[in-house]
Amino acid sequence: MDIEALLQEVCDGSLSPEAAAERLKRLPYEDIGFAKLDHHRALRSGFGEVVYCSGKTAGQVCAIFERFAAQDSNVLGTRATARQYEEAQKLLPAIEYHAPSGILTYITKPLPQKGLAAVCTGGTSDIPVAEEAARTAEFFGTNVERVFDVGVAGIHRLFDQLGRLRAANCIIAVAGMEGALPGVVAGLVDCPVIALPTSVGYGANFGGLSALLTMLNSCAEGIGVVNIDNGFGAGYLAAQINRLAMRGREEPA
Amino acid sequence: MDIEALLQEVCDGSLSPEAAAERLKRLPYEDIGFAKLDHHRALRSGFGEVVYCSGKTAGQVCAIFERFAAQDSNVLGTRATARQYEEAQKLLPAIEYHAPSGILTYITKPLPQKGLAAVCTGGTSDIPVAEEAARTAEFFGTNVERVFDVGVAGIHRLFDQLGRLRAANCIIAVAGMEGALPGVVAGLVDCPVIALPTSVGYGANFGGLSALLTMLNSCAEGIGVVNIDNGFGAGYLAAQINRLAMRGREEPA
Amino acid sequence: MDIEALLQEVCDGSLSPEAAAERLKRLPYEDIGFAKLDHHRALRSGFGEVVYCSGKTAGQVCAIFERFAAQDSNVLGTRATARQYEEAQKLLPAIEYHAPSGILTYITKPLPQKGLAAVCTGGTSDIPVAEEAARTAEFFGTNVERVFDVGVAGIHRLFDQLGRLRAANCIIAVAGMEGALPGVVAGLVDCPVIALPTSVGYGANFGGLSALLTMLNSCAEGIGVVNIDNGFGAGYLAAQINRLAMRGREEPA
Amino acid sequence: MDIEALLQEVCDGSLSPEAAAERLKRLPYEDIGFAKLDHHRALRSGFGEVVYCSGKTAGQVCAIFERFAAQDSNVLGTRATARQYEEAQKLLPAIEYHAPSGILTYITKPLPQKGLAAVCTGGTSDIPVAEEAARTAEFFGTNVERVFDVGVAGIHRLFDQLGRLRAANCIIAVAGMEGALPGVVAGLVDCPVIALPTSVGYGANFGGLSALLTMLNSCAEGIGVVNIDNGFGAGYLAAQINRLAMRGREEPA
Amino acid sequence: MDIEALLQEVCDGSLSPEAAAERLKRLPYEDIGFAKLDHHRALRSGFGEVVYCSGKTAGQVCAIFERFAAQDSNVLGTRATARQYEEAQKLLPAIEYHAPSGILTYITKPLPQKGLAAVCTGGTSDIPVAEEAARTAEFFGTNVERVFDVGVAGIHRLFDQLGRLRAANCIIAVAGMEGALPGVVAGLVDCPVIALPTSVGYGANFGGLSALLTMLNSCAEGIGVVNIDNGFGAGYLAAQINRLAMRGREEPA
Amino acid sequence: MDIEALLQEVCDGSLSPEAAAERLKRLPYEDIGFAKLDHHRALRSGFGEVVYCSGKTAGQVCAIFERFAAQDSNVLGTRATARQYEEAQKLLPAIEYHAPSGILTYITKPLPQKGLAAVCTGGTSDIPVAEEAARTAEFFGTNVERVFDVGVAGIHRLFDQLGRLRAANCIIAVAGMEGALPGVVAGLVDCPVIALPTSVGYGANFGGLSALLTMLNSCAEGIGVVNIDNGFGAGYLAAQINRLAMRGREEPA
Amino acid sequence: MDIEALLQEVCDGSLSPEAAAERLKRLPYEDIGFAKLDHHRALRSGFGEVVYCSGKTAGQVCAIFERFAAQDSNVLGTRATARQYEEAQKLLPAIEYHAPSGILTYITKPLPQKGLAAVCTGGTSDIPVAEEAARTAEFFGTNVERVFDVGVAGIHRLFDQLGRLRAANCIIAVAGMEGALPGVVAGLVDCPVIALPTSVGYGANFGGLSALLTMLNSCAEGIGVVNIDNGFGAGYLAAQINRLAMRGREEPA
Amino acid sequence: MDIEALLQEVCDGSLSPEAAAERLKRLPYEDIGFAKLDHHRALRSGFGEVVYCSGKTAGQVCAIFERFAAQDSNVLGTRATARQYEEAQKLLPAIEYHAPSGILTYITKPLPQKGLAAVCTGGTSDIPVAEEAARTAEFFGTNVERVFDVGVAGIHRLFDQLGRLRAANCIIAVAGMEGALPGVVAGLVDCPVIALPTSVGYGANFGGLSALLTMLNSCAEGIGVVNIDNGFGAGYLAAQINRLAMRGREEPA
Repeated sequence: MDIEALLQEVCDGSLSPEAAAERLKRLPYEDIGFAKLDHHRALRSGFGEVVYCSGKTAGQVCAIFERFAAQDSNVLGTRATARQYEEAQKLLPAIEYHAPSGILTYITKPLPQKGLAAVCTGGTSDIPVAEEAARTAEFFGTNVERVFDVGVAGIHRLFDQLGRLRAANCIIAVAGMEGALPGVVAGLVDCPVIALPTSVGYGANFGGLSALLTMLNSCAEGIGVVNIDNGFGAGYLAAQINRLAMRGREEPA
Repeated sequence: MDIEALLQEVCDGSLSPEAAAERLKRLPYEDIGFAKLDHHRALRSGFGEVVYCSGKTAGQVCAIFERFAAQDSNVLGTRATARQYEEAQKLLPAIEYHAPSGILTYITKPLPQKGLAAVCTGGTSDIPVAEEAARTAEFFGTNVERVFDVGVAGIHRLFDQLGRLRAANCIIAVAGMEGALPGVVAGLVDCPVIALPTSVGYGANFGGLSALLTMLNSCAEGIGVVNIDNGFGAGYLAAQINRLAMRGREEPA
Repeated sequence: MDIEALLQEVCDGSLSPEAAAERLKRLPYEDIGFAKLDHHRALRSGFGEVVYCSGKTAGQVCAIFERFAAQDSNVLGTRATARQYEEAQKLLPAIEYHAPSGILTYITKPLPQKGLAAVCTGGTSDIPVAEEAARTAEFFGTNVERVFDVGVAGIHRLFDQLGRLRAANCIIAVAGMEGALPGVVAGLVDCPVIALPTSVGYGANFGGLSALLTMLNSCAEGIGVVNIDNGFGAGYLAAQINRLAMRGREEPA
Repeated sequence: MDIEALLQEVCDGSLSPEAAAERLKRLPYEDIGFAKLDHHRALRSGFGEVVYCSGKTAGQVCAIFERFAAQDSNVLGTRATARQYEEAQKLLPAIEYHAPSGILTYITKPLPQKGLAAVCTGGTSDIPVAEEAARTAEFFGTNVERVFDVGVAGIHRLFDQLGRLRAANCIIAVAGMEGALPGVVAGLVDCPVIALPTSVGYGANFGGLSALLTMLNSCAEGIGVVNIDNGFGAGYLAAQINRLAMRGREEPA
Repeated sequence: MDIEALLQEVCDGSLSPEAAAERLKRLPYEDIGFAKLDHHRALRSGFGEVVYCSGKTAGQVCAIFERFAAQDSNVLGTRATARQYEEAQKLLPAIEYHAPSGILTYITKPLPQKGLAAVCTGGTSDIPVAEEAARTAEFFGTNVERVFDVGVAGIHRLFDQLGRLRAANCIIAVAGMEGALPGVVAGLVDCPVIALPTSVGYGANFGGLSALLTMLNSCAEGIGVVNIDNGFGAGYLAAQINRLAMRGREEPA
Repeated sequence: MDIEALLQEVCDGSLSPEAAAERLKRLPYEDIGFAKLDHHRALRSGFGEVVYCSGKTAGQVCAIFERFAAQDSNVLGTRATARQYEEAQKLLPAIEYHAPSGILTYITKPLPQKGLAAVCTGGTSDIPVAEEAARTAEFFGTNVERVFDVGVAGIHRLFDQLGRLRAANCIIAVAGMEGALPGVVAGLVDCPVIALPTSVGYGANFGGLSALLTMLNSCAEGIGVVNIDNGFGAGYLAAQINRLAMRGREEPA
Repeated sequence: MDIEALLQEVCDGSLSPEAAAERLKRLPYEDIGFAKLDHHRALRSGFGEVVYCSGKTAGQVCAIFERFAAQDSNVLGTRATARQYEEAQKLLPAIEYHAPSGILTYITKPLPQKGLAAVCTGGTSDIPVAEEAARTAEFFGTNVERVFDVGVAGIHRLFDQLGRLRAANCIIAVAGMEGALPGVVAGLVDCPVIALPTSVGYGANFGGLSALLTMLNSCAEGIGVVNIDNGFGAGYLAAQINRLAMRGREEPA
Repeated sequence: MDIEALLQEVCDGSLSPEAAAERLKRLPYEDIGFAKLDHHRALRSGFGEVVYCSGKTAGQVCAIFERFAAQDSNVLGTRATARQYEEAQKLLPAIEYHAPSGILTYITKPLPQKGLAAVCTGGTSDIPVAEEAARTAEFFGTNVERVFDVGVAGIHRLFDQLGRLRAANCIIAVAGMEGALPGVVAGLVDCPVIALPTSVGYGANFGGLSALLTMLNSCAEGIGVVNIDNGFGAGYLAAQINRLAMRGREEPA
């Protein structure tokens, strides 16, 4: 908020105190009754808009997508149901849906895909969460390399893929059950690893708690952990890190 | 309990009913007031006697060692303190003590060391627990290969030692923090792996719970888990498995 | 990996460096898109292939079974549904299904059954998990003795069956609720006991946590614990231990 | 509270309304500033007074003992320190102290000891808690049979003592670690079993939680559980049950 | 087991060793394949038979009831479903079912109801669990006084009912949510209180854990706790205590 | 309870001892079999009656509402289902239902709405719980300002609404997931903040535990926490505090 | 922040844009290097300053007290040690210390004490935490009635004190172990009850968790809970509520 | 590992198969008995060496530092004690120690400091952990801006410092107790935020668990979480991200 410039305008008489107060207060979001849409976010981050669809009615999801679409924003919906997609598609035919990961995307001006993030999983059951992460990163302009089913119980599969992992600016390592993959990967690469625990497993996995604790306690360096099954959070963070890595390569510091 | 034989003796008149009842009841243990010594255990297992020293006075530990020594048993003391050792040594000069692991040993007739168990650790801080396991296995007649500090955060160190691990009949994999070592090892060998979590770590390791859960949830096959820091339990189980593996090789089935 | 032999071939000129590099890299697994099949495992262990069916579509399960069948492997499916079985049976009529335990088996060359493992349970509700363990052990070539409903609340039932338990090379003790069975059994036998907690119970059993903690804290010696309801893991470990015990009896050391 | 009788006295004029109100309000306890002494309890229960000494200064403990002593009550102090004992002894030389269990007793009119409660423990480390239970039951007029170190890991020791256990009106079964003793005992007797978990153990025993959960989830019938290390609570409950059992035998119903 | 008498018979020649061994081994239970029926229990306790119906098929429940009925035993089924009842009723028309508590009863020779146990609840939602307790106690020959909806949030309701509670030999106090009822009741009576936590509540009640912990930590004396929702366990224990209290009143000691 | 006045009447002969005893005992509640209705509550608090509908049959809910309606009480039903509403409406057409929050209201004599409480939420998914709180506060005579979707992840939205929050006598801050809203709000206002955690979220939120712990550990001053999803409890407490704040403003102290 | 007034001054030319920006930014706190002192808090709340002394050196505590004292603020130190007091007293002789509760107070202009809050405890061990609450409330201008040792295990003690509790505008109910006191109190009064759990107890109290859960799950209405042992938080909230209650009585609405 | 080049040398005869096998096996670490030093790490990452000093003797720490120093590596010791420092200083006088954070540094060739990471804390008690993070990031070549004591309970302090935070490539947000700081910060910036929970607090903070859960459940985007009190892990990850951000700005992509 460039307060001094605004105050200078008030001082110059080019802006009335009332208008200035109004401008200070009119923060960049819009109220549509049941939700406050945050147009500010896209301005601030240069990314697109995000809608957490879980627990919203199909009608509410549609209304939010429409409002954002009216602003020519790209919109990403997470944890969306098929029913929400069907309703939304009637209003916005260009909307797309990936059922296993529950990702809705509405793209008006595609971002150029830059850099590279890798997404690897321990098993095949982790793929839906991994796809949520991968598609989120792609939505925010990141090239994504998928390296699935390379869990540590058969570690030769992981080694065969190391080259693909090492090419990335950052790696999302997805695992349920024992959750050991991120620690092993972090010991083999020198870029940041985002550890994404899943609730896959049974018994003493306690809905993903086991994998979460493993990742938090990893002895390997360079790991940041996100919530259980939080593919969106991992993908967003990967896109941020990738963007940092690529920004410099394009514009001189 | 060969009940029929005993009953036959009663039938034959070679044993009075009273004496038979007495024999049935006089189970092979001895009461010394504060503890019931289980001489039966050595008979049953062909191993030696074990004393859990934690929470006993030095005097109590001495008394138990003396009683077993009087039976010419080998005796293993676990979780012993230096003070318990000093007291016991006055009575039984041949007693030996390994301070880091808290292991006391009193050997009257050394068992032949057979077969091989390997004990590997993730870090150097896991060594005291690993030594409790290794010395327990040795006490019960097992050759032990130590492979320390080969944690998964630098997994090349583990691969270099795979040959030593694969030579064993069974492997004890010791790890704190994330506890991923047993799962990785079990994926690389085809013998049973005993997973031994330690309380090494801090924060969300919750006194070893993190490592314990990791091991229970491992996707790799062929893993049995013991309690946190329970080196004795791991060593005993390893000795049992090793003995099973070796028994057959000596005596035709 | 016999690296030296391979390098010798390169040295001899009988193998080109490119071919050698290729062979080093072509690890024994196969990628069918959504899963990496690990043919290596059967080579390594002399056992068969295993498919964890939970969370896979019927189609995916069929595809994996077919691929393994094409290699003439025996295949074991765990946690399979009736629907997965029906689909798979259309392609592989020889496939068999045991509904309570969710075990699918496809046997091309039956393994000889050797040695003996015992599987005992505390109650009748533990039987499905016990059957998963027993059938897994049988798949991997183990004779299995079933001793069900011998829980410690009526301990005379257990004593009557001790003879059958003591004949085994290793015992899987299955229990929910309080989970005391493995500790009592381990105090009565001298072979390894695999403790398998089940989620049977209610209230403060916390989905099997109570039984799991009981088993980890057992004072009895010679116990390795697996995850709650992990019948497969227990059966696999029992087969490994039994194989170790029998191997020696057949071939001189 | 015989309200009608009291009201009749008011009606008769033999008691003034003010005095009646006073009597209704002057509940049978006494305020000594930092604690409200409950003389009522002894009236109500026919037992003696109890002081929980933990967290009180030696001076406070002395003051409370003195006050009760002035009422000719027997007094039981729990969780007392040696220092509290030394101070109290100066004022009340007849006070007695049992250090391992932290029990202080001041007896003015000994209760006749009746009936029988048994106190059994899994190991020797459980003895201090067991003694707190036993001495509490004795303080409240119960004969106590001690049967220590009969844990389920060597269950033959327990069977040898069954006769002593079966003679009791109620049994306190004390165990740490896996805590399986009460369940096994309850399956072998037909009187109530009070399950008393101790914090003895390490690792995943979580300060006695493991034993507590085992006892709550026991399949055996006739078990009531008390808090971890709560020897006093177990002893008090045993005395109540024993008194119920004996009361009838003395006075015709 | 009157071993000496049996041995005397062997000595006398009135019993062959084989027959004696057989008799020693033929413990009083019967194996019907999927369950070992424990006829011993009724002999030992003078009570009836109990079947835990949860997790059994209607057919299995019927088979067990029939077998017991054939022995002229009273039978109590717990956690039974309406479907199990309907099946069982076809075979045993005299069977009765109480749906809210899931209690099945088949009575061949009614026990005389003696003494008194009280069952009180904090709220109306606790009534199904309370009825399981009450009906269990009644099955085992106990008169039961029901005092429902007297929770501590409106404690005057409890005081109005104190007379009914104080008439009992033992009280089962049932409560969910905060679980404070047993502690308050135990402070007002001088008989044993069986604390029965229920899973009623939401949020941080964690399925009854909150009520369970409250009861275990109660400062009041004379409380034994059973598992969450374990009405059967509470009712059985109450019947045992009541029987102890009444036994003496009938037969001179 | 004005005991002295009552006793004076007895003394005067204007009240018989029996009648006095009866009056002392006839506490102001009514027993309708399955529930004890507490008419006392409305007398004591000047508020209305409350029925916790969860776990009651539609018939039971109707009966309770009717009984209270017969007393001309306002009645609030919480956690009611649509089915309970439909049944109740047949008998009491004036009853109203708010489906998302499960609130039933039957108003005979509307309370005047006074003062102000604010209810703010972190997200839109928290609104149902927030409405339970708001409608409860309104039922008990409180004006309520709703300020929804102002979570801390976009804190500028909160600042824009601070004026509305600061006008209130007390604020209910509702949040799931991380639960940080109450702490931030409490740092910005000087009235009491009632922290109401919701179970909204996934993964390591553990059904609202994460939000609950955050609120309990808040560094900000002036926060009282209620149970997870307990909108009723928060609304009731807010109405009490608001009433305290307004009472003085109307009547001189 | 009266933004419009400030902007008007800029518009009038009576304030330069730079000075206005500065004033907007110079928020009312002061930086002394290791801590940012929040002078704003006293302005906002009309109360005094608070210093959380735990984890600060004696020197740091002194420095902060001095700085506040220089502003003529009253200052309250919580969780202070004797050593911190001794150092601070050298600089500010008027400082006072209450050792059991760890409360430091430095009063320059005493607040008038108004209204009434009651602080009651379950036992004597809860008194230090209760004193932290009471002294905090007093520091912020509240009359406090102390009603100690009235726990629910002897509930007649509580009833005798009800009059004292009912005179208060709000009640802090302090309890460890089972933590039932706040629920019982809230059912007997019609003012807000602040539930303050303590860590007093042992075994399954888990450092106060048991009492905390009890309080959160209370069925009684009108309860707000604070963190375990958080006497300061309870006292501050009580002072806020009391101030709300009294404010109106002094100034017409 | 350039396998093909190596194989080519073998093919050319310039390298014997044995030497090649040796070279393949001689992985870049060194064994000094109790620890395997990983010289590889510095090669791979371009950073320096790290020694986790906790649980090592002063002698062991010295030996490791010396060995690394002999390789002209910079060395960072974490969780070092004063005693370890004193011993190490005797051998390596240039070693430096920061007591509050337990950081030892031995710098032979200082890295150029580039870019910027910010480290902010909620309170003053979080500073030692924050310093561990800051000094780790500095060791690995990162400029660090410290912004301490800006917790959300007085959020205006945070806003005043936003400019300093927004200048950074990545922000470490350190908080104990409620742990809300990272979520609020992440909502205000567009760079990655590393959430670092501390164990600061008491009661229901459960040693940092409360703060950890808050951070994992944050609604704000762009957060990666590390273990409780794991300043080193946060600092390392920040250095990695900062290096990624700066690398591009120096060398054209």
